[in-house]
Amino acid sequence: MAKVISTGKGRRWLHGGHPWLYADDVAAAEAQSGELAPVFDPNDNPLGWGLFSDASRIAVRMVTRSPEQPNRAFWAGLIDRAVSLRERAGLLAPGRACRLLGGDSERLPGFVVDRYADVLVIQSGCQGSDRMRDFLLELLLERLPFEPRAVLDRSDASVRRLEELGDRVEWIRGDPVQAVRVEQADGLIFEVDPTGGHKTGHYLDQRENRERAARLAQGGRVLDAFCYDGLFGIAAARAGASEVLAIDQSASAGEQVGRNAELNGVSGRVRFERANAMKDLRARAEAGERYDLVVIDPPAFARNRREAAGAGRGYRELNLRAIHLVEPGGYLVTASCSFAVGREAFMGFVSEAARDSRRDVYVEALHGAGADHPVLITLPESEYLKCAILRVC
Amino acid sequence: MAKVISTGKGRRWLHGGHPWLYADDVAAAEAQSGELAPVFDPNDNPLGWGLFSDASRIAVRMVTRSPEQPNRAFWAGLIDRAVSLRERAGLLAPGRACRLLGGDSERLPGFVVDRYADVLVIQSGCQGSDRMRDFLLELLLERLPFEPRAVLDRSDASVRRLEELGDRVEWIRGDPVQAVRVEQADGLIFEVDPTGGHKTGHYLDQRENRERAARLAQGGRVLDAFCYDGLFGIAAARAGASEVLAIDQSASAGEQVGRNAELNGVSGRVRFERANAMKDLRARAEAGERYDLVVIDPPAFARNRREAAGAGRGYRELNLRAIHLVEPGGYLVTASCSFAVGREAFMGFVSEAARDSRRDVYVEALHGAGADHPVLITLPESEYLKCAILRVC
Repeated sequence: MAKVISTGKGRRWLHGGHPWLYADDVAAAEAQSGELAPVFDPNDNPLGWGLFSDASRIAVRMVTRSPEQPNRAFWAGLIDRAVSLRERAGLLAPGRACRLLGGDSERLPGFVVDRYADVLVIQSGCQGSDRMRDFLLELLLERLPFEPRAVLDRSDASVRRLEELGDRVEWIRGDPVQAVRVEQADGLIFEVDPTGGHKTGHYLDQRENRERAARLAQGGRVLDAFCYDGLFGIAAARAGASEVLAIDQSASAGEQVGRNAELNGVSGRVRFERANAMKDLRARAEAGERYDLVVIDPPAFARNRREAAGAGRGYRELNLRAIHLVEPGGYLVTASCSFAVGREAFMGFVSEAARDSRRDVYVEALHGAGADHPVLITLPESEYLKCAILRVC
Repeated sequence: MAKVISTGKGRRWLHGGHPWLYADDVAAAEAQSGELAPVFDPNDNPLGWGLFSDASRIAVRMVTRSPEQPNRAFWAGLIDRAVSLRERAGLLAPGRACRLLGGDSERLPGFVVDRYADVLVIQSGCQGSDRMRDFLLELLLERLPFEPRAVLDRSDASVRRLEELGDRVEWIRGDPVQAVRVEQADGLIFEVDPTGGHKTGHYLDQRENRERAARLAQGGRVLDAFCYDGLFGIAAARAGASEVLAIDQSASAGEQVGRNAELNGVSGRVRFERANAMKDLRARAEAGERYDLVVIDPPAFARNRREAAGAGRGYRELNLRAIHLVEPGGYLVTASCSFAVGREAFMGFVSEAARDSRRDVYVEALHGAGADHPVLITLPESEYLKCAILRVC
């Protein structure tokens, strides 16, 4: 029978509440790739159960601190908890999109399921979630208040290499879908390409932040930098922005922006320019351009703690350029999705940009991801997204 | 003519964007108590203008980094900025309450004005704001879209002692008012005693957080600890809580809770108990009581950085007791108004409480004060309020 024994250090770490046992903190392990195994401390006291990986630096991802072996009712309980959270947030209504299952933070290690209307997209990120995929999907489908027409397993994230897992992209239910149309609660419409888009096709985590930014846009001129599918800017146009300039360096982003603007009936007010936003913002600031709302939502500048210092320079410089572009009394919505740059570090970089701008910058709010991306307080890795709303005087 | 010369260290500090020049960083000063004075670095380069204090550790509170002397139009611009911010937030509608002027963070050092329907309450906190009171009030009254029936100068905060200023409580316009009735945008009604209540009579900074907590209360049982005037609990009762227990150790709080519950038509569902919340929560947790929503909004545990360590123990222990009191799937709304305990430190204490509780605790949001309490990013002192919304599984 499977069994993992932690070191004394590993026991202290797990007692601290973090759900990952690192390979360095494993004294002995007898378990197969992805197997659910009980974990014991060096004195044979039970520490709970977790999913074992024979390759990753994260050797065990804990699912419970109870000594009792998780059974079907246990897993069903976790799925129930996840589904009811989305239901209360209104995210299960027809046509909507959300993250249905959030992986490790919801005690479902590595198992992420996004929903785009009636299409589900699975991302499996570890050996355990690969092994449990069919079982967890079945439990989820039993509990969903709608029947998906198709399910894609899009397990091609780079993190799988750390688990010595290959990529897997396959439609496991229904016919392949090239473009799904989504309509969110605020009326925003967009199309997702589940196999071709970033991640599972779209960034769901900014849904509420887009709505918040849009509320600041009425009648104003908006710059949406690192726009990807353009939804910050398009939401702003829907909310009454007079004109929106969306910038991204990818040509396919331009196509998505065009299509999504059309779907929302705001093509006349949304213009796309292909450019490196970092350079482009400097040129525009120097040319004296000003906007009532500037949104910067760049890709992660740091993928790990080692890169965080360099990322700081990037965030400082980018935010300084963005502040220069804001009309007095206007707004900057600035995001970071680098886990390795924490909330305080990010706000420190923004504060330094504010200092260098010599303008009065007010923090109106500091948000994270939406309710469907739960932040487990003892898993800091689950708190990766920061989105500050700044008023610039 | 007045003039302040900073040390080299003082220059670097001001260049960092913080608006306070400390007495230790003043090389020379010729200015009267509260006078508006230009500040120069040791090489006679201008650093801006600020209000001088001949007694406080904060020698100059900067109002501008421009070398130009602030004139009437300058001050009017600051008041305009403040008033339009409240206007956009809907806070100037008849009958509402809000902070109209926020003092240092809005470049109006020490000058705070709260509005309760048609009554204004001034808090002057430094020599400069005492000297400028009548001038700033006049500018404010010119710009407000309503005519206050009375203005109270309630300058009795302990911070005045640091400025060697005595207390002053006087009605400077209109007839004295004993109780003002306020109705907020969400329909919550309450009464404020401008001369007798805490601060200017009420805690305006939790307005939005009360609304947020109330949205989690529907149909549930609510515990409101450190309740003061009971408005967290009463807002929850208005939003459909089945029963609310409000706890505070002050008897006058009990009277206020009773009156406010009656005003809102929820007396039948709001019960007050006079108790030390810290002890009472432990007793209730040990007795196995459970609530769907627990709110803890204690007074500041730390008044300065030296007290922050002890405050940590307090926050940890209090939050642990509160977590124990939450039904699985329920919510804890936990606040801290200690400036000296920053956002990350506070969340660290809450995280330790979550760890000790051995329950899964999710951070749904981390808010600050409302829009009428602006946070100037280069004045960390203006970011004192933290209010976390936690889901406890």
